[in-house]
Amino acid sequence: MGSLHESDISLSPPQLLNPEFNPLNIQEFRTQAHRMVDFIADYYQNIESYPVLSQVEPGYLRSRLPESAPYRPEPFEDILRDVKSDIIPGMTHWLSPNFFAFFPATVSSAAFVGEMLCTCFNAVGFNWLASPAATELEMVVMDWLAKLLKLPKSFMFSGSGGGVIQGTTSEALLVALIAARDRALTALGSHNIKKLVVYGSDQTHSTYTKVCKVAGIFPSNIRVIPTTSDDDFAMSPTLLRKVMEADVASGLVPLFICATVGTTSTTAVDPIGQLADVAEGTGAWLHVDAAYGGSACICPEFRHFLDGIERVDSLSLSPHKWLLSYLDCCCLWVKQPNLLVKALSTNPEYLRNKRSELDSVVDYKDWQVGTGRRFKALRLWLVMRSYGVANLQIHIRSDIRMAKMFEGFVKSDPLFEMVVPRTFSLVCFRFNPYKDSDPAYINLLNKKLLDLVNTTGRIYMTHTVAGEVYMLRFAVGATLTGDRHVYAAWKLIKESAEALLKRSYYIVS
Amino acid sequence: MGSLHESDISLSPPQLLNPEFNPLNIQEFRTQAHRMVDFIADYYQNIESYPVLSQVEPGYLRSRLPESAPYRPEPFEDILRDVKSDIIPGMTHWLSPNFFAFFPATVSSAAFVGEMLCTCFNAVGFNWLASPAATELEMVVMDWLAKLLKLPKSFMFSGSGGGVIQGTTSEALLVALIAARDRALTALGSHNIKKLVVYGSDQTHSTYTKVCKVAGIFPSNIRVIPTTSDDDFAMSPTLLRKVMEADVASGLVPLFICATVGTTSTTAVDPIGQLADVAEGTGAWLHVDAAYGGSACICPEFRHFLDGIERVDSLSLSPHKWLLSYLDCCCLWVKQPNLLVKALSTNPEYLRNKRSELDSVVDYKDWQVGTGRRFKALRLWLVMRSYGVANLQIHIRSDIRMAKMFEGFVKSDPLFEMVVPRTFSLVCFRFNPYKDSDPAYINLLNKKLLDLVNTTGRIYMTHTVAGEVYMLRFAVGATLTGDRHVYAAWKLIKESAEALLKRSYYIVS
Repeated sequence: MGSLHESDISLSPPQLLNPEFNPLNIQEFRTQAHRMVDFIADYYQNIESYPVLSQVEPGYLRSRLPESAPYRPEPFEDILRDVKSDIIPGMTHWLSPNFFAFFPATVSSAAFVGEMLCTCFNAVGFNWLASPAATELEMVVMDWLAKLLKLPKSFMFSGSGGGVIQGTTSEALLVALIAARDRALTALGSHNIKKLVVYGSDQTHSTYTKVCKVAGIFPSNIRVIPTTSDDDFAMSPTLLRKVMEADVASGLVPLFICATVGTTSTTAVDPIGQLADVAEGTGAWLHVDAAYGGSACICPEFRHFLDGIERVDSLSLSPHKWLLSYLDCCCLWVKQPNLLVKALSTNPEYLRNKRSELDSVVDYKDWQVGTGRRFKALRLWLVMRSYGVANLQIHIRSDIRMAKMFEGFVKSDPLFEMVVPRTFSLVCFRFNPYKDSDPAYINLLNKKLLDLVNTTGRIYMTHTVAGEVYMLRFAVGATLTGDRHVYAAWKLIKESAEALLKRSYYIVS
Repeated sequence: MGSLHESDISLSPPQLLNPEFNPLNIQEFRTQAHRMVDFIADYYQNIESYPVLSQVEPGYLRSRLPESAPYRPEPFEDILRDVKSDIIPGMTHWLSPNFFAFFPATVSSAAFVGEMLCTCFNAVGFNWLASPAATELEMVVMDWLAKLLKLPKSFMFSGSGGGVIQGTTSEALLVALIAARDRALTALGSHNIKKLVVYGSDQTHSTYTKVCKVAGIFPSNIRVIPTTSDDDFAMSPTLLRKVMEADVASGLVPLFICATVGTTSTTAVDPIGQLADVAEGTGAWLHVDAAYGGSACICPEFRHFLDGIERVDSLSLSPHKWLLSYLDCCCLWVKQPNLLVKALSTNPEYLRNKRSELDSVVDYKDWQVGTGRRFKALRLWLVMRSYGVANLQIHIRSDIRMAKMFEGFVKSDPLFEMVVPRTFSLVCFRFNPYKDSDPAYINLLNKKLLDLVNTTGRIYMTHTVAGEVYMLRFAVGATLTGDRHVYAAWKLIKESAEALLKRSYYIVS
């Protein structure tokens, strides 16, 4: 054999080559990251000074920015200046304590530093070997959270199931649906995809229909069970059974049912146990989307909303909504991980390794659509350890207490009314000064009220329509929100309503 | 009308209620985030002291961590201590300068602080109104990057197309495929999903097949065009045409072709222009996956790899791979955004707003599978501004120069050989001391060599198999890698090979 001599190497010795550009210079990293910490802390400190809902016009930014990337580097301070002058005015400030729209996305110092650490490692943990800690910590925290929720062992790694962190509910729904679909098609053959039927209610998240279409379910086979205010917009097991039986009678195959704990519109809770009764024996996969409402179930007094969960096939919950975790973090638990893996595994040569081949480890790429994945478990781990179960429960209870306070304001005022009973921390209400007036007029009045309130920039609320009633949604949950914000919001709404009444002759015209 | 008196409100005045738990206490945030910056900077500074490939055994972490989340909060310093003692040993250090596996995921100070800012805002920018700046900055940076790549106007917002940031290539492929599929099914009817055929080569990323299955394409309709070393593992337009013609003759419908610029195995480049010739007139959607190789095309001398790009329907490129952006960030450009929107739009009442209804703005939720999305454009914006095009080009050229240096080592050593010509910054080579020996033996020898090298923990390399040849992949690109690391890696590989030769009688047995 030959031996290596330095002279064999035709290039100059390395020490003579000077690096020309170092994008991860440690000193520069330290300086800039510290500077950014202060920038962000200052932003949080001053967040109440910005209009909650951005007041810019479409296209505002293009006119302010150059048409091309600069050829030469620009100083960090110039960029921060532009964040202040160009970006912040175009932000709708989701972290403002006066943000009561949609569902607020909750955050915390712990999750922030957890996210920094996740970014730091930049581990592309597609399989166990690519970063054992990333895979194993995810398994641990998914079991921790399952315990917090008092899920049965059948959803835990320490039992017969397991969990995985997806981006958002859409991805969680998609992989559960694909697992169910492929189980069905393995039995029926691909050509029978045309027979597969999926079920949700008219309150199920809009992404469900989209995800079903993405998975190739025929649009004509997507059933939407109507709900009514009599059931507080929960899915009716009786109706579901009727629709499923009709489908079976026409030779179709029930594939998937999506139940929701805390719908996006009004936080309705579908009756899991009764829906499981309907699903039983049909072969349909029952999924529970508890994106928002699930987090409340870490408190014993709310756990009953998950009653019957031991009978479903999968459950998703998004800690980025109500467990202080920043976006994006959606936890999915499944009873039969092997069905996910069967539907979603890949095994290219360049990822092969002994560990995976011995089947002794979890390769999370086979539990999701994509290959690469971030080390998101760190955030959840930091949140659970930094605050402890005790504080997480206090946090949930505090939001619900503030929502109750707002509910109290609404109920105590004869000009306003609750439209849907409050379940979690969302209050669905409306302005209804003339009890017998035309419903369309009341809807219009509330639209005007919402506009009036939001254009002040002092708070941001959104609306929904259910049972043909236009209602205002007051969602308490932004992490910085305290009693005084809820109180001030109510005062603003009330005053705006009064102003509106005074000029009501304009509204009708 | 009634009037609001303080006495109407049944709850205590807000100032009397003390918040019990504040997960975003600004002072605590500041302290912990600064502490974390130093922790991370120190980690980067010491990263060479860790074994690149984690040496832990499966299950190592579960035994070290408690079985449940703590009830009481734990001090931040305890958590950092556990990151050091429990997490870091289980990391495969993707950012180590001695990481030459897969494709390294490149990073930078600018992207890190950009990611901090993205986290900070926590804007859930599903539609324009939910955060105008998030949508508009994404439109701007997608056009900037398109210009850097000299893409035609038909892919830009300033022209007739547009771009969107997805998570990874899988999501980009999925939405492009769904847009193509739904265009076809609108014409053919859902029941004809059985006729839709998709094409890739045996070198196309493994996620392609998975994504096609997710989209409901029949597994029997997924065509894999074989490649050979004669074509350097590029897809043959002649073969593709033949397969497509046979499909059409049997009444099937060509739907989608995925070409690759820089395959994961060996960085093969499919001939875009010639594949466009084949696609022309068939109605098939032509997508280019340039996840890795695309970034090189910001340098004029490599731009030719995208020749013909004006004739394709969509292009994806992942700046998290080679444009210093941290995970995850995959840019997708499409010529007909309306096809994405048609396939993926949702319009629930609670997201309705004037801006979206006037159709005057981009609502990115209609360009992706999910609803919620992070403000990822900040990272790309920070990278492009902080470094400028000039430094980004230097960065690409520097990695390629180092790969060339390694290639020089391989070529100058009679015991080693290149297996595939080097195109970008990946060197595919093997140890081949006995030129006429059994191919299976040479494969085995290289497997042993890889094991030997990786178990030292001093570098991490991976392998692939193409054309039945087992080869070692030396991928230069980790941001901290300099000439001395490449040189030391070569020395280690060389010495390990020598050691292996000395005990080669063990290997054969």
